[in-house]
Amino acid sequence: MKAVVFRSPGAPLEYIDVELAAPKAGEVRVKIAAAGVCHSDLHVKRGEWDAPAPLVMGHEGSGVVVELGEGVTSLAVGDHVVLSWVPPCGECRYCRSGHEARCQKVATVVAPLGVLFDGTSRLSIDGDPIHHYLGVSSFAEEVVVPASGAVKVRDDAPLDVVALVGCAVATGVGAVLNTAAVEPGSTVVVIGCGGVGLNVVQGAKLAGAERIVAIDVNADKTALAAQFGATDSIDASQTDAVAALYELIPDGVDYAFDAIGRTSTTEQAIQMLGLGGAAVIVGLPPTGARASFEPLVLAEADQRILGSNYGSVRPSIDIPALVDRYMDGQLKLDPLVSGRRPLAEAAEAFEDLEFGGALRTLLIP
Amino acid sequence: MKAVVFRSPGAPLEYIDVELAAPKAGEVRVKIAAAGVCHSDLHVKRGEWDAPAPLVMGHEGSGVVVELGEGVTSLAVGDHVVLSWVPPCGECRYCRSGHEARCQKVATVVAPLGVLFDGTSRLSIDGDPIHHYLGVSSFAEEVVVPASGAVKVRDDAPLDVVALVGCAVATGVGAVLNTAAVEPGSTVVVIGCGGVGLNVVQGAKLAGAERIVAIDVNADKTALAAQFGATDSIDASQTDAVAALYELIPDGVDYAFDAIGRTSTTEQAIQMLGLGGAAVIVGLPPTGARASFEPLVLAEADQRILGSNYGSVRPSIDIPALVDRYMDGQLKLDPLVSGRRPLAEAAEAFEDLEFGGALRTLLIP
Repeated sequence: MKAVVFRSPGAPLEYIDVELAAPKAGEVRVKIAAAGVCHSDLHVKRGEWDAPAPLVMGHEGSGVVVELGEGVTSLAVGDHVVLSWVPPCGECRYCRSGHEARCQKVATVVAPLGVLFDGTSRLSIDGDPIHHYLGVSSFAEEVVVPASGAVKVRDDAPLDVVALVGCAVATGVGAVLNTAAVEPGSTVVVIGCGGVGLNVVQGAKLAGAERIVAIDVNADKTALAAQFGATDSIDASQTDAVAALYELIPDGVDYAFDAIGRTSTTEQAIQMLGLGGAAVIVGLPPTGARASFEPLVLAEADQRILGSNYGSVRPSIDIPALVDRYMDGQLKLDPLVSGRRPLAEAAEAFEDLEFGGALRTLLIP
Repeated sequence: MKAVVFRSPGAPLEYIDVELAAPKAGEVRVKIAAAGVCHSDLHVKRGEWDAPAPLVMGHEGSGVVVELGEGVTSLAVGDHVVLSWVPPCGECRYCRSGHEARCQKVATVVAPLGVLFDGTSRLSIDGDPIHHYLGVSSFAEEVVVPASGAVKVRDDAPLDVVALVGCAVATGVGAVLNTAAVEPGSTVVVIGCGGVGLNVVQGAKLAGAERIVAIDVNADKTALAAQFGATDSIDASQTDAVAALYELIPDGVDYAFDAIGRTSTTEQAIQMLGLGGAAVIVGLPPTGARASFEPLVLAEADQRILGSNYGSVRPSIDIPALVDRYMDGQLKLDPLVSGRRPLAEAAEAFEDLEFGGALRTLLIP
């Protein structure tokens, strides 16, 4: 099959033939309908994150189950699925206590080693194994993933668009509903209105937040945020974001989401908090970047800094529920899709993201 | 009456005559039985924290109600009370949502301005008003406090020792049970085994933690921690605390409490966390000190940094319950009292704390 291969930072992506082995026990093969291009892929491409290479890129996607490995009973051939880049093992103490996004086997084996649960890969080039990316590798015609990483969703949902539920929507909405558990009537600020940030905005609206302040350096994006539920906006290219926030909300906010992940935006989020407020780290910075805070203020004001991995989601519960909310009109997905390209144009799709201000380009095999 | 007055950093404390006005509406007058000397008082004395001066020191104490202001029905003359340095206003959005330790009126009026709720002081010297400290000022023969800052406790509890419940115990045990909500079976590390840290240790034991690692540079204190429930100890004067912790618990811990509040100990606590772990800031650093963390790690490992103000307690609920637990033998208080001195020897009590390794000296008027 054709797939998009990353070999090393700076090297051009390769659209080449890759062999995909049959699913082993507990795994399934999925024919990809669409795969979204995310900032995390860009971090890998730039070499800002460590990932075992060569690998097939992509960690967001949707498709149809075409083959079941031994013992798989939770899925059937023909099922429509959204891929989850945390395929919960179901056995570790985190999975068993409702914290599947922290799955220990994913965090210690699948993600860092670029393999599936048994420590091996189903991907190879001319017989030499290459790596999976985050247990997904969706920039390909097909994938083999653990059955728990292919989450069945309703057949009447448009199969290409729901790919976004697997990363951007789960991460953004999950950070609001699961990680932070924003209460009705809360005040919320969202720094960064890209694919994840807009989902934080619509998650805050779903949660019943009273004020939702959208911040970006791009006025087009804050305008879009208003469509997703933002009540106020700050153009950070024109003004100091922290000072502007305190003009809007003098007591500071209950929840500040950093959907960018720069040291400066993380520190701004913390500085925007009122009494008892929580800063939520959703956007991810390069490895090694550090942010600082004042422990005295954090303690005296009973504040919190919360890391949010994958929106603290429980994939099998949250992904179908998010698709239902989209179908009910409570969540917007279509305006997040800024374009579609054939899989062969993955390199151009990265340029759309890096230089063209694209929200989400869907790659269609 | 006699009281201990602080005028400016570095100046000697004064044991002098201070006038105490009668309680206004909603306030009560309490005759002090005992007052504990805490590190927070030391921070003020050294000028490391801003506090409006001159003031009468002390924020931990117990006593007997001797006079009721107009409209007070929750207390009666003769009631035994523990003083709370957060007297909840009961009206702000935090009080009304069960987060009394964040009380907005305390955080914006009582604490920073050194006054009671109406913006004035009941304390004066030769007719010139001086300030309350944290709405308490217990280094005195008597205090006038808001009725919600004098919490009735059972008459059969020894009135001097329960003074500690008002700060050290509430802060330490509350950080475990309220702020962090440590689950049974958790792994816990406590950095610093002073008055607050030992209460974190016994709070973790109450919560059913499986491992409780006590860290201090003073081996006497870690030995005491073992009596309070610690299962392991690290002598930080002899070894790198973080490396030693990972030798004991290779996956890192679920909860790391910084009961010291130095930049280095805060950062160590964060570095000791495993997947989904929470660092809890209990010890308070000087104003302006900053600590740093790696947002990528915090997010990917779904970790949290939690500020804990006053153990996130609800004084009227938690203080009597903590006294009950002491009387039932579930909480130790007596080993925390390292000495008793007459109120006139407040300066010596500070020396005990600063140079003598004292846990808690009780000042007896």
